[in-house]
Amino acid sequence: MDLYFAPLACTLATRIALYDSGQEARFIEVDLRTKKVLADGSDYFAVNPLGQVPALRIGSGEVLYENGAVLQYVADQAATAGLAPPAGSYERYRLQRWLSFIGSELQKGVFIPLLDPDAPEGAKAFARAKATLRFDYLNRILAERDYLLGRFTVADAYLVTILNWTVATEINLADWPALKAYHARLHQRPSIARAFAEERALYDAEQARHKAA
Amino acid sequence: MDLYFAPLACTLATRIALYDSGQEARFIEVDLRTKKVLADGSDYFAVNPLGQVPALRIGSGEVLYENGAVLQYVADQAATAGLAPPAGSYERYRLQRWLSFIGSELQKGVFIPLLDPDAPEGAKAFARAKATLRFDYLNRILAERDYLLGRFTVADAYLVTILNWTVATEINLADWPALKAYHARLHQRPSIARAFAEERALYDAEQARHKAA
Repeated sequence: MDLYFAPLACTLATRIALYDSGQEARFIEVDLRTKKVLADGSDYFAVNPLGQVPALRIGSGEVLYENGAVLQYVADQAATAGLAPPAGSYERYRLQRWLSFIGSELQKGVFIPLLDPDAPEGAKAFARAKATLRFDYLNRILAERDYLLGRFTVADAYLVTILNWTVATEINLADWPALKAYHARLHQRPSIARAFAEERALYDAEQARHKAA
Repeated sequence: MDLYFAPLACTLATRIALYDSGQEARFIEVDLRTKKVLADGSDYFAVNPLGQVPALRIGSGEVLYENGAVLQYVADQAATAGLAPPAGSYERYRLQRWLSFIGSELQKGVFIPLLDPDAPEGAKAFARAKATLRFDYLNRILAERDYLLGRFTVADAYLVTILNWTVATEINLADWPALKAYHARLHQRPSIARAFAEERALYDAEQARHKAA
């Protein structure tokens, strides 16, 4: 598998899933500002016409897009690791529900406008207004259980990735103690600690490149 | 199954899937402005703490949320109808990719800000700026094939539902001829024609109630 990723972007969730389930992959870094593959400067739009990560090239050469699909694919390649409930089980729909919620309500609805330096203030205000109901809800749920489903799954890998982004916004995780505790607890998990440390270093290097450019 | 829905909201996709696969369900209308169940005025937040549709109560009494999950569940209950590729097949991940794209990029990223009368102009401008790349991409794909996957699936039911909303925005489908033709062609499908006509009547009744209130 070739995973096209950007440091600390939503693709961190896939790296976590790969490490957690002991799978190998080639990680290909993309600069989302220039839309170029970092190593060779090639046009990333040729890989994903929308210019977004993730893109996951699998053995057949086909490319899969969108976290909600890529994370299920990666989990299913190492099914015994249990990162997704079995396909066809009711729990699998609950996983899909969380992947959908995190991707649409949190990533697109709240964080993209807050993180985009070019977003107008009205877009940021609209996003901020949506955060409270959603974070309150997650906080109630994670006050009662350790993971979104009964055990660690790719939905947690995705949620912890998104929660990392709060440090770059006005959202203060301390306002939601159970959510803050969940985030801190998950960062103790070896796959997450390793993936985050590695991408944090790549992120710092990317920031330095952008500053120099 | 009990489907909590709002007229012409994203839940139209689930009604289409139910009709197309010949499944029975109880349709329970929700007023998303008041967050009340229309028939008895009960609090809809008790059904979905986020106050959104869909919510699908299944036989066990459990409630499933999010189109990306509900549509796969409904398709799998009548697997011979072929509204979703088999769970575990590679095509299923491609379906999930489209459900994720439609739910995050189109519904949340473009249409929610454009359709919300309370959204600031900055939020609408941010959403409008995202529409072109996404619609161009869909137009290229649907110029080459009749459906998002090889045949009609719940991803098409979802996309046609979202495209219906363009009439209430500044997005003019005529700018993307293949997409406009796809939308018109799908509206000829009996399940879609029936579901749309029924919900259109419910939508008009809802608008009249809101006006009178």
